[in-house]
Amino acid sequence: MARIDPKDVRHVASLGGGPIGGGWTAHFLARGYDVTSYLHDPAEEPVFRDIVDTAWTSLVALGLSDGASLDRLTITNSLEEAVSGAQFVQESAPEILGVKQALYRMLGEILPDDVVIASSTSGLTMTEIQRDCPTPERTVVGHPFNPPYLLPLVEITSGDRTAVDAVDWAEAFYRIAGKAPLVLNREIPGFIATRLQEALWREALHMVANGEATPEQIDLALINGPGPRMALMGQCMAFHVACGEGGMATNLDQFGPALKLPWTRLEAPELTKELRDRMVDGCNDIAAGRHFKDMAAERDRGLVAILKAIAEAK
Amino acid sequence: MARIDPKDVRHVASLGGGPIGGGWTAHFLARGYDVTSYLHDPAEEPVFRDIVDTAWTSLVALGLSDGASLDRLTITNSLEEAVSGAQFVQESAPEILGVKQALYRMLGEILPDDVVIASSTSGLTMTEIQRDCPTPERTVVGHPFNPPYLLPLVEITSGDRTAVDAVDWAEAFYRIAGKAPLVLNREIPGFIATRLQEALWREALHMVANGEATPEQIDLALINGPGPRMALMGQCMAFHVACGEGGMATNLDQFGPALKLPWTRLEAPELTKELRDRMVDGCNDIAAGRHFKDMAAERDRGLVAILKAIAEAK
Repeated sequence: MARIDPKDVRHVASLGGGPIGGGWTAHFLARGYDVTSYLHDPAEEPVFRDIVDTAWTSLVALGLSDGASLDRLTITNSLEEAVSGAQFVQESAPEILGVKQALYRMLGEILPDDVVIASSTSGLTMTEIQRDCPTPERTVVGHPFNPPYLLPLVEITSGDRTAVDAVDWAEAFYRIAGKAPLVLNREIPGFIATRLQEALWREALHMVANGEATPEQIDLALINGPGPRMALMGQCMAFHVACGEGGMATNLDQFGPALKLPWTRLEAPELTKELRDRMVDGCNDIAAGRHFKDMAAERDRGLVAILKAIAEAK
Repeated sequence: MARIDPKDVRHVASLGGGPIGGGWTAHFLARGYDVTSYLHDPAEEPVFRDIVDTAWTSLVALGLSDGASLDRLTITNSLEEAVSGAQFVQESAPEILGVKQALYRMLGEILPDDVVIASSTSGLTMTEIQRDCPTPERTVVGHPFNPPYLLPLVEITSGDRTAVDAVDWAEAFYRIAGKAPLVLNREIPGFIATRLQEALWREALHMVANGEATPEQIDLALINGPGPRMALMGQCMAFHVACGEGGMATNLDQFGPALKLPWTRLEAPELTKELRDRMVDGCNDIAAGRHFKDMAAERDRGLVAILKAIAEAK
């Protein structure tokens, strides 16, 4: 499929008037695109404008791309008008399978075959969503993280009938558009980030249910503990770097038995040699030859900057 | 028990030459205390000095307290000398129960009864550690988060024979000493922060074991997704604020059914009315009457500052 070069995209359609649709609209405007936003009901416009304006304040503070302007936003209640001339479509309709399926059937008919459509869905799979779409090859999931105008993550998955080149195109486009795309190996319920967050959340609910912690204690523990570090270093590299020369291998060999401890209600997988190797090799890949001391120093510089930024923002 | 006013503490003993003991030493020095550090073996000194020096670089960048100086560090291999004159003892000995029990027996004999001793233990309980201590009333757990010289969290728990006033004293002292103390309701394995982190970690290991994600994908998902937000807002308030007027109540009522979905391998607790109320009341307590829009704006200001800080630190 000959698609437009992702660098040449100028006009994006954003479908949906909620916080996710509004967040995407603000993000694409801030990156200098022309954006046409589709609202199902004209009555949604004041709230939608408020969402975009609120996001805009932060986006201005972060720095706009050349030519970015709120004036480049068009709002319409006509789906045909919304996608007319669009070179990319970000769909953030309600999380109701029937609604999305009907929408993708229509989009498949009115939108040229080469235009990629990405769904913001957090709970549905593209295999389900694209079922009735006559041109499913160009449909992907492009799931943002809340608030979508600030957090860079976009998780990309494909449905059974999605073409590989549509995934590649979406990844390239999101990166050019200032996001941090992450293509998943397969359709996994909850994707990666939400699954990890959900594991933490369920454990938190267990603690509150058992009287072991209050919501306030949980939030204080996160903000003052793993939170600042997780802003710049994932859990794999946090352990890898903390274990010095031995890295992840030392972590797993030393703390592997702790996986058997009742430190959460989540049973850990068996620490097979294969899993150990995947973790160790994966961390070494990320480290790419950097010495752990250099990575720790980089982590600490980042933490200092974050702790200062938080203190100053208060 | 008449203890010294936490504000009047000038001299701290830090026991242990590893990364945790060294991190505590650097932290207390940066806050302007005289610190005597006990190393079991004189041969540990070069590595220990390196740990302290490395931490110092970050602490200088964050800003030292008046009079803070590396010159106020004394290193000794005599336990008696280390605790002589100390008004607070932070113990970071190896995580071996027998070693800690023997140490607390000795400390209980040579240290005046009114001096609080806090253990950095991450995996043992104070009930076990204090077993052979003749003066267990003043012993608490004061568990830091890695790296201990930068992350503010200190989780405080007591053993069966710990006096309540020792816990209160430790909480007050840590706060004065620039930490974010969190007193736990009870001795819970893994405390709060490590349990939450461990739930996330186990889910991550499941993903890698199943070929659903690589360590690199996991880390990218965290850094670009929940990470920056978790540096300033815990998971409870993140959901509370994201749900607008309805807050946590809306979150639980709307997404409660999602707790039944296989979005992690951790089974969620039953969402009873009691749990729902605890979550909702807890979030309302934290919000303390602030409007969700104000809290969202504060979150966004913080996120902008963090994202800028991360970009500049790179």
